[in-house]
Amino acid sequence: MGRTTVGIIGAGPAGLTLANLLAKTGVECVVLERHGRSYIEGRARAGVLEQRAVDMLAANGLADRLLAEAEPHGVCEFRVYGKAFTVPYGDLYEGRTHYVYPQQELVTDLVAALLDRGGDIRFDVDSVALHQIDGPRPVISWTGADGEERLECDFIAGCDGYRGVSRQSIPAGMFREYSHNPGIAWLSILAEAPPSTRAIIYALHENGFAGHMLRSKTVSRFYLQCPVSDDVRNWPDERVWAELRERLALADGSWRLTEGAIIEKRVLDMRSFVVEPMSHGRLYLLGDAAHVITPVGAKGMNLALHDAEVLANALTHWRTTGETTALDAYSEICLRRVWRCQEFSQWMTSMIHMPREDDEEHGFLGRLAMARLEHLMNSRTFASAFAENYVGLM
Amino acid sequence: MGRTTVGIIGAGPAGLTLANLLAKTGVECVVLERHGRSYIEGRARAGVLEQRAVDMLAANGLADRLLAEAEPHGVCEFRVYGKAFTVPYGDLYEGRTHYVYPQQELVTDLVAALLDRGGDIRFDVDSVALHQIDGPRPVISWTGADGEERLECDFIAGCDGYRGVSRQSIPAGMFREYSHNPGIAWLSILAEAPPSTRAIIYALHENGFAGHMLRSKTVSRFYLQCPVSDDVRNWPDERVWAELRERLALADGSWRLTEGAIIEKRVLDMRSFVVEPMSHGRLYLLGDAAHVITPVGAKGMNLALHDAEVLANALTHWRTTGETTALDAYSEICLRRVWRCQEFSQWMTSMIHMPREDDEEHGFLGRLAMARLEHLMNSRTFASAFAENYVGLM
Repeated sequence: MGRTTVGIIGAGPAGLTLANLLAKTGVECVVLERHGRSYIEGRARAGVLEQRAVDMLAANGLADRLLAEAEPHGVCEFRVYGKAFTVPYGDLYEGRTHYVYPQQELVTDLVAALLDRGGDIRFDVDSVALHQIDGPRPVISWTGADGEERLECDFIAGCDGYRGVSRQSIPAGMFREYSHNPGIAWLSILAEAPPSTRAIIYALHENGFAGHMLRSKTVSRFYLQCPVSDDVRNWPDERVWAELRERLALADGSWRLTEGAIIEKRVLDMRSFVVEPMSHGRLYLLGDAAHVITPVGAKGMNLALHDAEVLANALTHWRTTGETTALDAYSEICLRRVWRCQEFSQWMTSMIHMPREDDEEHGFLGRLAMARLEHLMNSRTFASAFAENYVGLM
Repeated sequence: MGRTTVGIIGAGPAGLTLANLLAKTGVECVVLERHGRSYIEGRARAGVLEQRAVDMLAANGLADRLLAEAEPHGVCEFRVYGKAFTVPYGDLYEGRTHYVYPQQELVTDLVAALLDRGGDIRFDVDSVALHQIDGPRPVISWTGADGEERLECDFIAGCDGYRGVSRQSIPAGMFREYSHNPGIAWLSILAEAPPSTRAIIYALHENGFAGHMLRSKTVSRFYLQCPVSDDVRNWPDERVWAELRERLALADGSWRLTEGAIIEKRVLDMRSFVVEPMSHGRLYLLGDAAHVITPVGAKGMNLALHDAEVLANALTHWRTTGETTALDAYSEICLRRVWRCQEFSQWMTSMIHMPREDDEEHGFLGRLAMARLEHLMNSRTFASAFAENYVGLM
């Protein structure tokens, strides 16, 4: 049986950031990933990093390519039934901005940095299971290239996402689950199309919400609100582009959408989920394993990086002092930011989606959403409060 | 048949302010009120005026006693499960504050000022009806001390509240009604008790919301969240005081509630209502006749005064120029502020009321409310955005 200090399950942004931060302070760890390296380095998901995440990565030598290639963004645009206004959020919160950098690029950088530092990543592991997480020496077992393997750890970091085995290994009744489903779904589209905009666009249209997100000079992400149980087969490419053209259009006809080959279509629901606490025994949950947030506000990857930072600091503190005080505070510190972001994401979700027609208070609630947008447009104070949350609290 | 320029139905804050502003610019009007003078001068309802309302009254010579007697208030307090924090909103929005001044005091001042200016108020009128509001000369009929009377007007101002005859005189289909019911009710209590606090208190407690509002040195208003279909008979005085003591308590026991004789108990639901447009033909709706808002944020009376100001300006403009452009814009101008306040009131309502236990997402939504309160406590930017809405936009 192998032996390490921290067994990290999952090589996504949370697991890889944690591994790099631990490697830097000399805390031994092993990362287990069920997919292959090329798969995770190509998987397109999130794409926006907050200033504080970039600062943290840079302080740990993990942002060289990011800072060279990612574009800072400090303006977003709302299109409300064909009329546009922008919020210069980068000017409204101490000059802090977003960095547009696709998740797979960050993952690529983090894998390379970890291997450079002599880190240990096992790809293509199967049948991962956790054992004795309540005891002083938890064990991870899996099936890899050489058959079944076992690794004894001081701590396990569960970074394996919402459907991962880590959270499911915690005995029933040891945590509370909070969930929320506003009954909204998005068709998420990734296309080989250069951006048709310099600022992210959030569009309200009578057909539903549409979004134009930025990823790179050659690839863009789009969103189209769709029925909750919709199927991508209902969305042939020509329908996607027609609907994007219609919902994103400006009333004066002054805007053109650049189209391209669609390389991914998925239906996402706006479900949210949080577990409390985010740890049990010697198992700590990070990122989507502990909390799922809507894409609205682009907080998911940023929360994962925050969890990794907090846990890395706590483990380093334990390694240095033998004290578990920082580890004991892990869940509470992370949850404070998680709930802040959940609140903001729900607030913003309700602002950019008109209530469903079958809601008997549709009219009233729709007017409230419009009033909120109008206030965002007119009040610098309100826009500053938006900016603080949107660009990410320090 | 009598003849006037503006027939004003209802001598509440909206009708009386309108009448005073019109009297000042020489636009003739008659006010009809179904109650007697002593009744309306004693009826306790709202009690908080925004800075902009006070400025407007002062600019029109209607705030002498108010400015001498009302106390400016710029701090409110939240008590969250026994722990208190304050928001110094008066410092956060250009030094603007609230003025605590009971509605009946303002009504008393407005009646006196109108009579001083030679204004015409008819009290104790009965069976008010509106006729020919679509035509150029609408008529109001009523039964007064001298039998049936009729008054021909150029315009009618419906200031007779949610249940008044004015809105009901508009033909079906000529306006759209928006309503919202969050399923929350308050027991509203008026007591001859000096305030136990210098700042308004909003308290979250596991038994439900409680509020301690300010009215005068000898009278206070309190609120207790209660079941929606509750009856005041379920609330004998001793239960009211016990529940207020419990819900308003500080965990460290450092606060005492001063009790007194309870002079009014009512169950209010948090229903909201807006009609669009706020006019039809030559009838203009003001205040509660056009919109009802929750007591949260204390916007009702302030919106009524704003409506009166906008309509008085528009009528004066019409009188001076013969143009109806300002009158045509009345509804849109008022509705913009109405929806801003509705949005704020709903936002604040959801922050100070934990979701109902029978809501399956109770836990998640409750955590969001707590996150919002925590952010209000911690972020000066967010508190400034709160202050701007709370103390009232300019």
